[in-house]
Formats: sequence, C-alpha cells, structure tokens
Amino acid sequence: MKNVKIPSIAITRLSLYARNLKLLDQKGVEVVSSVRLADICGINPAQIRKDLAYFGQFGVRGVGYYVKELLFEIGKILGLDKEWRLALVGVGNLGFALLRHAQFVNHGYTFVAAFDRKPKRVGIKIGDVEVAPLENMNRLVKERGVEIGVIAVMPGSAQKAADMLIRAGVCGILNFAPIQLQCLAHVFVENIDFSLKLDVLRYRLTPARSRRHRSHSKPPQLLA
Amino acid sequence: MKNVKIPSIAITRLSLYARNLKLLDQKGVEVVSSVRLADICGINPAQIRKDLAYFGQFGVRGVGYYVKELLFEIGKILGLDKEWRLALVGVGNLGFALLRHAQFVNHGYTFVAAFDRKPKRVGIKIGDVEVAPLENMNRLVKERGVEIGVIAVMPGSAQKAADMLIRAGVCGILNFAPIQLQCLAHVFVENIDFSLKLDVLRYRLTPARSRRHRSHSKPPQLLA
Repeated sequence: MKNVKIPSIAITRLSLYARNLKLLDQKGVEVVSSVRLADICGINPAQIRKDLAYFGQFGVRGVGYYVKELLFEIGKILGLDKEWRLALVGVGNLGFALLRHAQFVNHGYTFVAAFDRKPKRVGIKIGDVEVAPLENMNRLVKERGVEIGVIAVMPGSAQKAADMLIRAGVCGILNFAPIQLQCLAHVFVENIDFSLKLDVLRYRLTPARSRRHRSHSKPPQLLA
Repeated sequence: MKNVKIPSIAITRLSLYARNLKLLDQKGVEVVSSVRLADICGINPAQIRKDLAYFGQFGVRGVGYYVKELLFEIGKILGLDKEWRLALVGVGNLGFALLRHAQFVNHGYTFVAAFDRKPKRVGIKIGDVEVAPLENMNRLVKERGVEIGVIAVMPGSAQKAADMLIRAGVCGILNFAPIQLQCLAHVFVENIDFSLKLDVLRYRLTPARSRRHRSHSKPPQLLA
C-alpha cells in the first residue's frame, strides 16, 4: 500500500465493490470487466481502477477482474474476515431500529451492548442485547470487547456519549446525531446525517433560476 | 454560478456550513473568519473558500464572513427558504424511527404520506401521518405535492418502491436500502448506507500490518 492517507470516500467505494462482487460470485460469475463492475456499482470505470491502485495492482488488462480473487483481496484490506463488536448509545426509536436492523449482521457487525440514560429503558431486551445504564458502559465495553460505538442520542447528549465511549476504550464511532463531535486524534468518527443528504436532493431539485445566486461580478463589500 | 456540475459532497458541506452559521447567529456572532468556521465544521479553510467559489464571491479579505449574510446566501442556494414534502415507503422499525425523527422537521422537511405493503400497518397513525397502502401512492403523492421519496423497505423491494415513486412523479429519492437503484436520468438519488460507513471505521481500525495487502511488485498474472 502506498504511504498515503486513503480518503474515506474511496474506502466506502471499496466496500461497495465488495458487496457487488459478492453478489456476482453468488451468481457464479468468475470474471468481470471494470466497465461492467463500474456499471453495477453506478461508478465510472476509471474510478474503480484509481481506488484499487491505492492498494496494489489488481485485474488483468483485456480480461478484467477475477471475482473471487478481488473479493478476497478487498476483504483483507477492509478487515471483512473478522466479526466487529458494536455498542449502541441511545435506545430511542432510531436506536431500536438500528438494533433490529439486518444490515449490520449481514455485513459482519454485531451489537454486543446497548446503553440508555432513561431508567424505563434499562433492562429491556432487544434481540440478544439487554439495555444497560450508562454507569455500566466502562465495564461492559471492556468485558465484551466493543470496538465501535454507535451514537443515536439527541444532539445535546452526543458529545457526552462520545466522551464516555472513548474513556471506555472505543476508538471508532458511528455518529447519527447531527453535530460535529470533538474527539481525540486517535479516534475515528463517521457521521450519518439524514438531513445533509436531503439537502443535496433539495439543491438538485431547486431550479437554478430560483436560486437568484450572487453574481460573480458583484463586489465583496456588498456583504457588509 | 459557474456552469459546472457541483459535486454532492460540496453541497453536503454547504449544508453543514449553514447549520453552524445558524448556531453562530443564535449566539449573536456577527462575523466569523474562515479559519474559525472551518474549525467548527471540522473542515479545512481552503475547502470552505473552494466550495463557496462555485456560487460566487463571499466574505471580505482580512475580515471573514458576515454570519447573517452568508447564511442567507447559502439558504438561497440550497432552497432552505421552502418547506419540502416527503413520502415514506416502508414503515418497519427504521421507517417508524424516521417518521418520528426531529431532524427532518428541524431542517425544513415534513412527511406528508407514508406507505406500506403490509395490511396490518395500513391505517396506523404516526404523528400526523396515516400509513396508506401502496395502491394509493400514485394518487396521494400527487394530491399532497410530495417532492422527495424516502425508501426504508427491504433491499429486495427497494427498486419496486423507487419505480412506483417515480411513476407518481417524484424526482428525488433518499434511499436507505443497501442497493444501487436504477433510475431515470431526471431522478436524483442519495443513499444512506449504514454498513458502508462502518466499513470505513473497520478499515481505519484495522492495523495496516494485518492487511497483508498485495505488494505492488507482484505481477498481475498471480490473480489467475
């Protein structure tokens, strides 16, 4: 691997390639061209070659990629050969839905703990996980080997949840609260923010003429 | 605005700037430097200037951005001055959580319809929205002026849900199912995929040495 920081977006695409290679493999497809794989993933072929180039040389010119081989290699890169242990903080409607969501289990993630500050939620069992009070986080995260924390609390409580997870030893956080978490440098945070994605749609659906955007020719002092 | 396609990621950041400018405005802050705004958003200052440059010239050199002004301008660009109407397809745990989620309402989105194929869910009222059968989608989407469809069904049903929404006249889709939707060119799709985000964390948390990645020096025929 080149000694560069790989952008998160490239990792996300790698994961998308792996998912689609798996489907091809299940259908008995042995070789796939970069054009075909790109088409399935909704990405352009040059991008696939560029993303893979971070990690080495894959595929055979004029032939394409051997599906099983490439899947295996991406699996190693992404650590797909290992089960990862998650802890949820915040068992409201969203947290409940996440605990029940098949997508996590199907992709090698298991919730091994869940926490909530509300006493009425403590003790409820959802699937195999019993909701525990926040006070038990430090102990349970260590005992159960939690590697990634999932934050689904209200925005005002998200930073506290992150701080508690990090103190307990968690270094990876998936954050559903629409705030920017302040974390130590060794902690990795990925945000899932529904309304930011909707804002992209809203922008694309807004006719350009109705934007009445600032003209390039206007002088900046108009801002004052 | 320059006559270029603005990347979705830039729009997402614009939306993030707007959110933080709003908080600054509420605190009574009148002017913010690009360095300070970048710090709050967790983004580098050059990126902010680059994103804004798509739309015109903002800010005053040596002073920074006038908070209210920039918020107003971004609001126009993103269409934040208008309420957007959403329809949900799939009222399982995730769909239920989305209907109840404050993030949508707080950011100018309102669910005006919800659909589910299961008869036992039809007729249930969640907030102001009553779950309707799929057969009513075409009529209700038109009657209620739905602009964006939110898909929270199982992966195997997501394409059908998208097709139905598009037939009813929806041109923007927020897709929570982990599949690549095939849509017409005039339809905009944004995906929210939990496990792809987790895969980024998994990658960052996997020690490089354990990746045993393919060396650049290995010849490609090893793939065969």
